[in-house]
Formats: sequence, C-alpha cells, structure tokens
Amino acid sequence: MLQIGIYGAKGRMGKQIQFCLEEENAKASALFDQNDNISEFFENCEVVIDFSSPIGTKELLNFARTNPKPLVIGTTGLDEKTFQLLQSAAEVMPVFYATNMSLGVAVLNYLANKASTLLENFDIEILEMHHRHKKDSPSGTAMSLAQNVAKARFLDLEKVRISGRDGIIGERNKDTIAVMSLRGGDIVGRHTIGFYEDGEYLELTHNATSRATFAKGAIKIAKWLVSKEPNLYSINDFLGI
Amino acid sequence: MLQIGIYGAKGRMGKQIQFCLEEENAKASALFDQNDNISEFFENCEVVIDFSSPIGTKELLNFARTNPKPLVIGTTGLDEKTFQLLQSAAEVMPVFYATNMSLGVAVLNYLANKASTLLENFDIEILEMHHRHKKDSPSGTAMSLAQNVAKARFLDLEKVRISGRDGIIGERNKDTIAVMSLRGGDIVGRHTIGFYEDGEYLELTHNATSRATFAKGAIKIAKWLVSKEPNLYSINDFLGI
Amino acid sequence: MLQIGIYGAKGRMGKQIQFCLEEENAKASALFDQNDNISEFFENCEVVIDFSSPIGTKELLNFARTNPKPLVIGTTGLDEKTFQLLQSAAEVMPVFYATNMSLGVAVLNYLANKASTLLENFDIEILEMHHRHKKDSPSGTAMSLAQNVAKARFLDLEKVRISGRDGIIGERNKDTIAVMSLRGGDIVGRHTIGFYEDGEYLELTHNATSRATFAKGAIKIAKWLVSKEPNLYSINDFLGI
Amino acid sequence: MLQIGIYGAKGRMGKQIQFCLEEENAKASALFDQNDNISEFFENCEVVIDFSSPIGTKELLNFARTNPKPLVIGTTGLDEKTFQLLQSAAEVMPVFYATNMSLGVAVLNYLANKASTLLENFDIEILEMHHRHKKDSPSGTAMSLAQNVAKARFLDLEKVRISGRDGIIGERNKDTIAVMSLRGGDIVGRHTIGFYEDGEYLELTHNATSRATFAKGAIKIAKWLVSKEPNLYSINDFLGI
Repeated sequence: MLQIGIYGAKGRMGKQIQFCLEEENAKASALFDQNDNISEFFENCEVVIDFSSPIGTKELLNFARTNPKPLVIGTTGLDEKTFQLLQSAAEVMPVFYATNMSLGVAVLNYLANKASTLLENFDIEILEMHHRHKKDSPSGTAMSLAQNVAKARFLDLEKVRISGRDGIIGERNKDTIAVMSLRGGDIVGRHTIGFYEDGEYLELTHNATSRATFAKGAIKIAKWLVSKEPNLYSINDFLGI
Repeated sequence: MLQIGIYGAKGRMGKQIQFCLEEENAKASALFDQNDNISEFFENCEVVIDFSSPIGTKELLNFARTNPKPLVIGTTGLDEKTFQLLQSAAEVMPVFYATNMSLGVAVLNYLANKASTLLENFDIEILEMHHRHKKDSPSGTAMSLAQNVAKARFLDLEKVRISGRDGIIGERNKDTIAVMSLRGGDIVGRHTIGFYEDGEYLELTHNATSRATFAKGAIKIAKWLVSKEPNLYSINDFLGI
Repeated sequence: MLQIGIYGAKGRMGKQIQFCLEEENAKASALFDQNDNISEFFENCEVVIDFSSPIGTKELLNFARTNPKPLVIGTTGLDEKTFQLLQSAAEVMPVFYATNMSLGVAVLNYLANKASTLLENFDIEILEMHHRHKKDSPSGTAMSLAQNVAKARFLDLEKVRISGRDGIIGERNKDTIAVMSLRGGDIVGRHTIGFYEDGEYLELTHNATSRATFAKGAIKIAKWLVSKEPNLYSINDFLGI
Repeated sequence: MLQIGIYGAKGRMGKQIQFCLEEENAKASALFDQNDNISEFFENCEVVIDFSSPIGTKELLNFARTNPKPLVIGTTGLDEKTFQLLQSAAEVMPVFYATNMSLGVAVLNYLANKASTLLENFDIEILEMHHRHKKDSPSGTAMSLAQNVAKARFLDLEKVRISGRDGIIGERNKDTIAVMSLRGGDIVGRHTIGFYEDGEYLELTHNATSRATFAKGAIKIAKWLVSKEPNLYSINDFLGI
C-alpha cells in the first residue's frame, strides 16, 4: 500500500484527504504541520500531497531540492518565485501541480475545448452555482473554463466576457462569453457550459456532490505520480489527453 | 364551434392564432386589421381575441363600449387611459387581460408564490434564457416572477434584485433575489426559479417549446370567457386559483 | 434551548440528528438505545425524536401511553398494530408522523398536486436518481409522489404506472404516469416531476445535497410540535398547507 | 449559390429542407418525387440531398452509378443490397451517409466517447425524451449513443443495456448502461448522457429545438460535400474528428 505523506495535515483539505484514504486503498504514513520535523516526515513517505499555504509550499520545495520525492501540489496563490522553485524541483523529481484536482472538471475542460471548435457558430454561455458563503464571483473554475474556450476560439476573454445583463442591451454579440454566477444553499460547485444555435443546443454540466472529490483526485494522482520520471505534470498528463 | 374574431389578424400573434385554431377545435369567423370595418367584424364573431397595438386596443374598447362582446386582450404596453377603458368595458361585458397567456407560466407563478412562503429560509435565484435576438434583459416574464415572489416575502424588489455578480462581493445576503439572463440560439423562453437551503434545493423550470403556446392559451381562454358574466378576468381566474 | 431526547441514538439517523443539533440551536438532553432506562430518558427531555425500528417504536408508544410527551416519529415499516398505538397516543399527546422529513420534498408534493389539477391536459412523467448502492426502485419518495398526483387526477396508480419503455410500444397514453429510476455515483436523492404539453412544459426538481436534510427537518418539527395540543400531525400540518 | 437537388421533395424532410434553404444561403434548383424524370433532375443540380425511402434511395443509387453526382443520403432503413450500392457509388462520386444530420448530436457522440474512456470508473446512464406521439423506445439516437459508449468500454450493449428499473433489483452493476425513455408534450428530442462517481458527476445534454436542425445539417453537409473527392463520408469526416 502506498505510503502517503500529507503536508498541511491540519488544514481543511489535509483533513479531507485523511478521511478519504481508506476508501482509495491508500495510507497516511506521515503527517506534517507547522513545527513538525520535515526530515522525519520525508523519511516516512513515498509521495507527498501538499495542500498547505504559499509559504508552506515554498518551504517544502526548498527542502525537496536536496531530498527529491514525488510531489502532488494543490496549494493556490503561489507567487512567481515559488513557481520557479516548482519548475526547478521538477527537474529532479516528478511534480504534479493543479488548482482543481477533480477528474470531472478536467474532463469538462477537455470536452468544452473540443466543442468550442467543432461547434464554431454556437453561442457560448457559462453558468456556475455555489453555496451562499462563497465570497468571490465567478468561481475560479468557471474563469478557467472561460479562458479555455476563449483561447480555443482565438478570443480575448477580457474583451468578450460579461457577468450580468440588465436593460435594453441589444442582440447578443456572437463573440460574447457570459459567465454568470448563482449563489444559494450549500451547493459544493455546479458548472454548466452551453453551446446554442438555431435549432439545437448542447449543455455540459459538472456537479461536485462533496468536497471529498478533490481529496480523492489528489490521492489518485499521487498513486500515478509515484512511478513517473522527473517532470512537471498537469491534470491533462494524468488523464493522458 | 366557437366563432372567434381575430383583431390584429395580420400581426405575428394574429397569424399564429389562425394557425392554431383547427388544433384547438375553434374557427376564425372574422378577421380585422387596420382599415377593415369593425361593425361587420363584430357581427361575425362571438368573442374577440386582440393582439394588436396600444392604439388598436383603444379603438377596440371604444367600439365595444356600445357593442358589448367578450374580449380577450393580450396587447402589451397599454397606457393608463386605455386601462381605464378596459375597466369600464368590463362592467358590461366579460374582459380578460394578460400579457402572457401560457398556462404553464401562470402555474409557475402560482407555485413559486406558494414555495416562497413555505420555504421561507431558502435563498431565491431566478434564471431565464432566451434566443440571441432578444434585446432586453431580464425578460418581462422573469421580472413578473421576481415581483411575485418578492411580494410574497414582503421585500421591495428594487432593493433586493441583482442581475449580475462579479468580483469579491461577499457572502450572499439572505434577501437578495438574483434574476440572471442567458442568451443564445433560438430558445423561445426558459425560466427557472430555484429555492436553495443547506441540504436541499427545489428548482421549478418552465420551457416554452414554440410560440404557438401563447396562441393556444388565448384560444382556450376565449372558449372559457364566452359564457362568463361581465367582469375583468385574469389568468388566475381562468385557472380557478 | 429545547431539550431533545433522541430515541434510537446509535442508528444512522440518530447520529445524524446529534450532528446537526448545534446548527439548529437545539440540544440532546437525553439519548436512548437498546437496554437504556426509558423512564430516565423521558425525565430528561421535553420532546422525543424517534428513528429506531418498528419494535423500538412500539415499545416507545407503549411507554408514552402512561407518560405523555411530544413525539416526532420517523421510523418506517410500522405494522397495523403499531399504527393504532400511534393514533391512541395522539389522543393524549402531540404526535408527528412522516417517512420523509425534508421540507423540500413536502413542498414538492404540495406543488405537484396543484400542478396536476391545474395542468389537466399535460402528460406527467416522474424521474428519480439515487446512488449506485440503492437496492430498490423506484424510490419510496417517487412512489409517494406518483400516488399523490394519480389521486389528484382520479387515476389508479397501479393501472397507469410504468417503470420502463422498450420496443414499439405505440403513442403515449394520456393517463400513463411513468416513474423512471436512474442509479449512479453517490447521489443522495433527486426527484423530478414533469408536466408536458404541446408548446410548453413545466419541471419541478428536488435535490437533496446531504442526508443532514432529513435530520434538520426532524429537529425543526420537534421545536414546532412541543407547544401543540394532543393530535396526530403530518408534514402538511407543520407547513400549514 | 449552390444548386441543390432535393430527392424526395414532397416528404416531411424534403419539405423542411426547402423551407430552410434561404436561411442557409442555398437554392433548390431541382425537385424530384415519384414519377418525375430523374435525368432532368440530375441535369439541374450540382448535389443531391435524399430523404426518400429505401426503394427511392436504391433507384437513386442505380441511376447515379452511370451519372455521378455528389450525394447526401439521410434515408433510414436501407437494406444490405442498397448499402452495397452506396459503397460502389462512393468509388466514383462523393457520398455522405448518416441517419442523424444534427451537428450537435454528432458532437455529443464524440464527447461521450471521450468521456467514457477518460472517466472509466464512472457509471453511465442515458436518458432521452421525445414527444407523446413517438411510437418506439428508446430513440434511434439514444441507441447509437449507447452503442458508441459501450464500444468505448469494450462492453456488449445487448448484455449491459436496461430500459427500466422496478422492484428490489439490488445494487447497480458497474457495467450497466441504462437507456431510459420519457415521453410527453411535443419535445423534438432531448438526449442526456451522464457519468456518475462518488463525489461528482458530469452530464452532457443535447436538445433539438426544431426539426429544422436536421434539414440545415443536410444543407451544410451538401455545401461541404460538393468539392470532395469520391469516397464514402460520415458526419465525423464532415466535422474533421
């Protein structure tokens, strides 16, 4: 059974991962949080999953430089400097980096990209819904999706994105990409991208039913990463797409 | 078979009604458009369906005052004066007035009103989608729906309505009613009102699959109105709710 | 703060209720499981929530007969005899009984009933989806919903219900009520009832996002029941519909 | 402007195509129905669109053998013999054959195929809905979709397909592919394929809002086919996938 080290073990995602290990047939052989001994932590695991903080990730990468170990990193908000460390580390060990480890969201992005090109005359609208406590809109996942399809259509998202409609705004401009946000209840995350043409439309919807999705994604990725060559990997590499 | 007179016979809805009569087991016994003879028109029908223009409706009501006949009126944008004429007319003949004659939309409004009260702690979000050529947002039907549920919760819609979300806008305010608009393809009209709470949500969606819906609604209402006493009737009267 | 006694405290729902008490601003003042002392249990609470077993509920009712206390009962599979005990108990204490304590499902049933009558010419189709481990189909909630709308249309559900379609089965019979079941993933429970007519349709969908929904429903009902007169109450009484 | 010949001009699809030509910037330069002169018909067009009958298509192919012309064929129910004629014809002229000419459905099939492989542990369920007059279930389009994803997972559809669920049927078998059919109103065609896993699910839905979709697809394909080399083409060739 794979010996996983959880870095940021007391954080929300760190706990969630521990909760999901058994179901994924894996084991936490080492836990790390602030003030723990990182050498000891590294000695006791075969792969590290990191959902800590930008500072935590920086320290992790600095230590790993001279103590290579496969790293699965899901921390968000990394600065330029840390990202360079991440790329250096990837020269001597396999490093995986993604800000959303749900397989379904990765596949949604892949399919949306294909559809944007194949259905070139279809209007694109994106709708996301999250729980009432979410403070930012649209969600990061919706913005990545919008970026992705804008790129597929050679559009500049900043110029074509709208986030609301009110008043006599005239007919829809073909290139517009609306990214609309609904909020309410405890919805974990629902994202729909729709392609609309006269006579037909296609809607692709991803629904996260529990936060465990993201934890399980990280564990699956750790299992896959452990036997890889040194390199920087993305979720598309994991999916082989 | 009911002898229906179509006032505004060459307009988009006037034509649509003629197209749907057979299916509804009714008959156009008289057609009226600008410059036709209104006396002759009235002599040849038992009930009038009017989808003309504010001016057309005013002339219809002026004539009907002294020539009572059941009137089904669906013209939008009537001014105060015409609305007074409409109320006077209703003292001597049955008059039906509504700006959306789809039974489904009427029922959606009725159910949404009940749910708003019964599910008092649930967040309310409204989403509508129409074809790419629609120039105004949100749709009139979505705004009526929002007005309806705001009233049920003793809220002032102008204060609680939003039509977009962008940036760090903070947690959702319980009283907010979002009315979001999607546009694309040739969608006739789709309206969803959702009620969201921790642990569960309820979504009510109406979909118009063809413009004929509104024409058929008018014909059904005409059949019902013809045997009624003088009065001003709404779609709720027709539905008995 | 209301002193709640949880009867069947170690069962799945018993544990779920304890988990949700704080959020609902309530407190478990007494817990009861097999072999505990029921007199002591009754002394330490103001209202009892029971999700035990048919035998457990029978014993509870037998004891309550001479020791009246408001009872919220959610146990399923009660036999005729126990149901008679329940009705006798309701003569001397307030007793609430329901097999699904989600407010949303209760409201869905209420709205579906109204819509079935108001939209009398619309075809009715019910669709439910649950997780891959569910062993029976359709779900009890879908069957109750079907029963409810069949009754509203004066139909015998046994004669009009179908649970699949395959082959050249001919045009849809107007009175048919399809109750179709999807299974997959970890979906807690999704129920849609649709009303379909030429030109428009209305779909009402309830989604349970967590099992906590049912626990919270029970706690809310307990708070409401504690001040009621002796009687047998249903979820419609609680909702005032 | 492309000179299109419509073979089977008085049939439902033949009429629909004529209705859509202007919008697609094309023209019917020749119409053919039973008893018309096929030589004259061929002389007056650059490409033929055929939605006739199995016998009509056979005669068309026999004539085209010695009078090559690009052919777009959408007739269903062809026998083995006619299919051989079609392949012979494709040696001397470009021939396109498909039983559903909606671009959206073609893309749905493409995306579903990818998702079936990428999301290998997800349960697959297919749901289709059509109008109340449809006599067969499931729809041909749903069956093609099921065939497609079964193949992608190396499953034998005949062994894993179910079309209904009723009673105590036990937990879902991982390999099952349910193809469920709803019927009601005037729905032109709605197909959903869902992929369900613990923690997340992905649903892909295609909706045809008018029958014109299929006619426009055929016209677009005719424009594309006219400049192609002799060969037998499918909708995937047209989409370049």
